[in-house]
Amino acid sequence: MGRPMQNVTNRRWLLAAYPDGMPSPDDWAFDTQPVPDPGPGQILVKAQWLSVDPYMRGRMSPGANYTKGVGLGEVMAGGGVGEVVASNHPAWKIGDIAESMSFGWQEWSVLAPDVFGPAGVNKIDAKLAPIESSLSWLGMPGVTAYFGLLDVGRPRPGETVVVSAASGAVGQLVGQIAKLAGCRAVAIAGDDAKLAWCRDIGFDAAINYKTAAELAAAVKAACPQGVDVFFDNTAGPVHDAVMKNLSIGARVVICGRVALAANFGKPDVGERFMGQLIVTRASMHGFLVFDWWHRRSEALKRLAAWQREGKIRFKEDVLDGIERMPEAFLRLLHGKNFGKQIVRIG
Amino acid sequence: MGRPMQNVTNRRWLLAAYPDGMPSPDDWAFDTQPVPDPGPGQILVKAQWLSVDPYMRGRMSPGANYTKGVGLGEVMAGGGVGEVVASNHPAWKIGDIAESMSFGWQEWSVLAPDVFGPAGVNKIDAKLAPIESSLSWLGMPGVTAYFGLLDVGRPRPGETVVVSAASGAVGQLVGQIAKLAGCRAVAIAGDDAKLAWCRDIGFDAAINYKTAAELAAAVKAACPQGVDVFFDNTAGPVHDAVMKNLSIGARVVICGRVALAANFGKPDVGERFMGQLIVTRASMHGFLVFDWWHRRSEALKRLAAWQREGKIRFKEDVLDGIERMPEAFLRLLHGKNFGKQIVRIG
Repeated sequence: MGRPMQNVTNRRWLLAAYPDGMPSPDDWAFDTQPVPDPGPGQILVKAQWLSVDPYMRGRMSPGANYTKGVGLGEVMAGGGVGEVVASNHPAWKIGDIAESMSFGWQEWSVLAPDVFGPAGVNKIDAKLAPIESSLSWLGMPGVTAYFGLLDVGRPRPGETVVVSAASGAVGQLVGQIAKLAGCRAVAIAGDDAKLAWCRDIGFDAAINYKTAAELAAAVKAACPQGVDVFFDNTAGPVHDAVMKNLSIGARVVICGRVALAANFGKPDVGERFMGQLIVTRASMHGFLVFDWWHRRSEALKRLAAWQREGKIRFKEDVLDGIERMPEAFLRLLHGKNFGKQIVRIG
Repeated sequence: MGRPMQNVTNRRWLLAAYPDGMPSPDDWAFDTQPVPDPGPGQILVKAQWLSVDPYMRGRMSPGANYTKGVGLGEVMAGGGVGEVVASNHPAWKIGDIAESMSFGWQEWSVLAPDVFGPAGVNKIDAKLAPIESSLSWLGMPGVTAYFGLLDVGRPRPGETVVVSAASGAVGQLVGQIAKLAGCRAVAIAGDDAKLAWCRDIGFDAAINYKTAAELAAAVKAACPQGVDVFFDNTAGPVHDAVMKNLSIGARVVICGRVALAANFGKPDVGERFMGQLIVTRASMHGFLVFDWWHRRSEALKRLAAWQREGKIRFKEDVLDGIERMPEAFLRLLHGKNFGKQIVRIG
């Protein structure tokens, strides 16, 4: 096979600096390179959609987090989905749709389908759902919500499930799955329009953490029997308010901490809740979806069925163009997105 | 039945004040009353040993903790063991040995054997072990160590178990049970003599949190593979140092928070560890032994067998006389006891 795209330009974003606290647009550098060739066993994919997700903040640091950081001058890490334009792999043909968390912030990506696990490549059935769904409700955020709530949070019918960043990619699914599990679902977010959407998709109550006079009291009012499952996407003051309202035997799923983005890498100082944990016999569980990656297809099958039956709905927030990747990511870190933030590459 | 002890005095301690932070001797008032008569279905017991335990700090507050506080002017709550001197209950006869957490800080106590659960009365076999063991390794602290470590901490052979307040009533048992479970056990305490005892009973390493130059580094040095199970009896700075050294999948058992005694009821402000929990997928579990009370005999049977076989040893710290109950309890809160603190009433 020759060089299929040898005169085409690959536009991409390189990591230019390790930010101290909240990232800024200067932390990435726009770059153009010839489209690379796929090596043996590899495929070349043209991005149609790229994802931004909170975990990317962790990759913008030199140390190891749960996986190693992006090197300076390397393509910024991120997932994407697009069409195969060249293949040196027997199971992949031109025109197939490939989704991968190894895509990077770039228009063209060389991927290795034989990699097993989160860095691998998934073949997407475009007839099942719009292909960008593979970055949201039918992909990593969906799998996160599914196993984080059901396997870690272990909700029982009649229990109260509280979700922070409730209109986000993971949060809106957690609320809807909680309802399907027979629970009461309570949304926390920082914007009334987001909370109206949460009510619209089935959350029973909604709390605006920015306008509530006293947040712990607002949680108590919304959860008179206490909080049985707290699915925490944010950490910070919302976490604190919910921790004061746990029921006996409550489960707290620590999924994200986007509220701490401005202080990434620095100690998070505030109130601890040892007493509450003992008195309520509650548990807090750090959760990383990749521990469930071998059961990914189980979640996707169920999510697809629910969506087909009209039982879950999902809101995306779309920007256009590779140029806007930093902007899209910073919208997310600042809570300005409304629904799952994705970028259409075209 | 008449009034068996009508001319005998019952010396006792009443709760006189709800302390703000660390209790002081003035928070109790010494009192004498005639020995009470047992009512229908009740027994009268003469204390031989009384216990002091960290949980009692929680009872010295007006609000509900996991159980309601002691009222002002009421007998201070606490467990004890002694001989039945009068019985209106068919299953109990004079001379039987009764242990109960409902004893109170007093020489004579009327108990109701038909109460089910933690407030009930247990008949003690004096041939099995010295009767004061029913307040320590063969009683509530033993059951705490047993289920807290094995059911909540879930140690696997080869794992590293770190124990705070390691020479205390619960800690010394946790370390020895961890060894029996095939683990490496690491003791943390604030006194070299206590740590020497911990090494003597089988702990593999020992850290003095008062003299370690940098505590988190000392934990890292003692646990090069990370901490798999952290049995936390103290909260505070020891907790913080261990949390920075969790292994992937670590379990943290939040059993006590005696290090916070001086700030009881006030917010515990310090570093939180959301990032560590996510990166390590660790879990923190608030633990209260009474949730395992229905399986109490299972733990006691096993502990008795281990002790008989010479596999566990236990150190007690004994004071003499009902007069010394406040002193004994304050020794405990200040970490001045060496082993399980009990008081011989005679």
